[in-house]
Amino acid sequence: MTIDSLAIRRRDGVLEVLDQTLLPGEERWVAVRDSATMIMLIQRLSVRGAPLIGVAAALALAVEAENNVGKGALRHKAHELRNARPTAVNLMHAMDRMIRVLGQGKAAIVAEAEAIYDEDVNLCRDMAERAAAFLNEGDGVLTHCNTGGLATAGVGTALGAIRAAWESGKKIHVYVDETRPLLQGARLTAWELAKLGIPHTLICDNMAANLMRSGKVNQVIVGADRIALNGDVANKVGTYGLSVLAHHHKVPFTVVAPSTTLDPDCPSGSEIPIEERNGEEVRAGKAPASVNVWNPAFDVAPRELITRIVLEDRVL
Amino acid sequence: MTIDSLAIRRRDGVLEVLDQTLLPGEERWVAVRDSATMIMLIQRLSVRGAPLIGVAAALALAVEAENNVGKGALRHKAHELRNARPTAVNLMHAMDRMIRVLGQGKAAIVAEAEAIYDEDVNLCRDMAERAAAFLNEGDGVLTHCNTGGLATAGVGTALGAIRAAWESGKKIHVYVDETRPLLQGARLTAWELAKLGIPHTLICDNMAANLMRSGKVNQVIVGADRIALNGDVANKVGTYGLSVLAHHHKVPFTVVAPSTTLDPDCPSGSEIPIEERNGEEVRAGKAPASVNVWNPAFDVAPRELITRIVLEDRVL
Repeated sequence: MTIDSLAIRRRDGVLEVLDQTLLPGEERWVAVRDSATMIMLIQRLSVRGAPLIGVAAALALAVEAENNVGKGALRHKAHELRNARPTAVNLMHAMDRMIRVLGQGKAAIVAEAEAIYDEDVNLCRDMAERAAAFLNEGDGVLTHCNTGGLATAGVGTALGAIRAAWESGKKIHVYVDETRPLLQGARLTAWELAKLGIPHTLICDNMAANLMRSGKVNQVIVGADRIALNGDVANKVGTYGLSVLAHHHKVPFTVVAPSTTLDPDCPSGSEIPIEERNGEEVRAGKAPASVNVWNPAFDVAPRELITRIVLEDRVL
Repeated sequence: MTIDSLAIRRRDGVLEVLDQTLLPGEERWVAVRDSATMIMLIQRLSVRGAPLIGVAAALALAVEAENNVGKGALRHKAHELRNARPTAVNLMHAMDRMIRVLGQGKAAIVAEAEAIYDEDVNLCRDMAERAAAFLNEGDGVLTHCNTGGLATAGVGTALGAIRAAWESGKKIHVYVDETRPLLQGARLTAWELAKLGIPHTLICDNMAANLMRSGKVNQVIVGADRIALNGDVANKVGTYGLSVLAHHHKVPFTVVAPSTTLDPDCPSGSEIPIEERNGEEVRAGKAPASVNVWNPAFDVAPRELITRIVLEDRVL
């Protein structure tokens, strides 16, 4: 099967991922010949986006199986991959699927990983089309972080919906939150939108409220890293604030995510583990080197501030 | 008279300002021998903070008077200084005072500039003490941008209040918004707080909502660049969003500013001119070089979202 997306591919039998930390300045593909390399790439965010890390981890485990690693070692590596990052649940779902087929031999393991890849492509297409229906001609659409082809195996979640709306002929303008501290909006979403030819304007995260009040933005659309049973949504830090601001300005707030993002074991958002990352991401050589930093990578938008959650097969 | 504050001083008769664009990495003082240099320093934010730019512009005009520049040329330079930046009204007030004494000779001009400096020191002291009364033992205090000794001739406005509360023995913890795009919080406020020994934690602007929900922050305190007649407050971009978030979380939102920030000619916030700055400040070498950017330097918090405005002599 061909693996060939914006952020992950197989070339001459070698799994490769695009190092997203170098974008947009450099497009460098990195070969992944074992799961330890993939864990490192996931943890340093060279590979990121909730759906993509699930797909990438599954494909990395398949590489190990192809290298004839034994079942016990595969199980151990699967658990290491599963724990690479704590918040996005797609990774756990993908690895649980892989773990279930570990006893069925190399071909079955590879086929399962490829199925996870293939299904994500289809999930993206379906949810993008479903969510695009909520975007209208002339809309100003604010999005946060990166939820496009770099975050999934397919066209993306929220950004996939924007793309589908644009390609269906709706003239929209996208406002891109830069998404501190790692600037996934400024670096990745702006890069994708330029490639797609969709008009867009970059802002700092702290300008979103002003933009909503100005009337330039009448839609907010984001992805999700985990959705609790009660409908609370964990997503890139800043999402919760946007949900409050959208509510205050009466701007619809749409979450687009595949059903692999749902976590039936999580009753509400307060049970979702929130990864805290190194303060150096925030200091970034600008702040005093010794300054104490709080750097949660995610936050939780509560269901009452969310207008709708669009999955591949239904709208909540 | 001695001119010797954290950000502006006179040494051996030469006016000098601290180049704030280089902080916290380097403390470099720049000599200012004419008003054109001061305008350049104000426009590139080497000298910033609404009260400070008024004081600095007045002192720069005094330098021109000491150089025996004629009255007509002084008037022209005064108007150029007055127009260096559009949003903060303290600059206009200070220059209007200077323009009124241009016919009274060199000594009067220098004395007026020194009076503006001296008065700002006193205004800071008085409003810091008045506003500190609203901060309580154990508070978590969120502040935005830089409103301390680097933004005024004295102890500052909002940060002056934090300092006064701390020095009166109240144990508080300060959360510092980094304040994109130019990171006045991360670079300047964190630097000042470290010098003062006041405990603080740096966050990205998009984490403020999460912090309020967590209960770690129970006060928001900011400065102002211009206050309209109806109580609307223009301040560093991001302030409006914070006012919405504070209102949603029932966190008191305090503005601390000298009465030189009041603009009786501005009926409401919508009449306050908002400076838009170069998109390169946002791109900062990270985003695609060609990306379109919206970069307003300020926004307006409406009176209904503001708990109180503390001036040097009263609370609104």
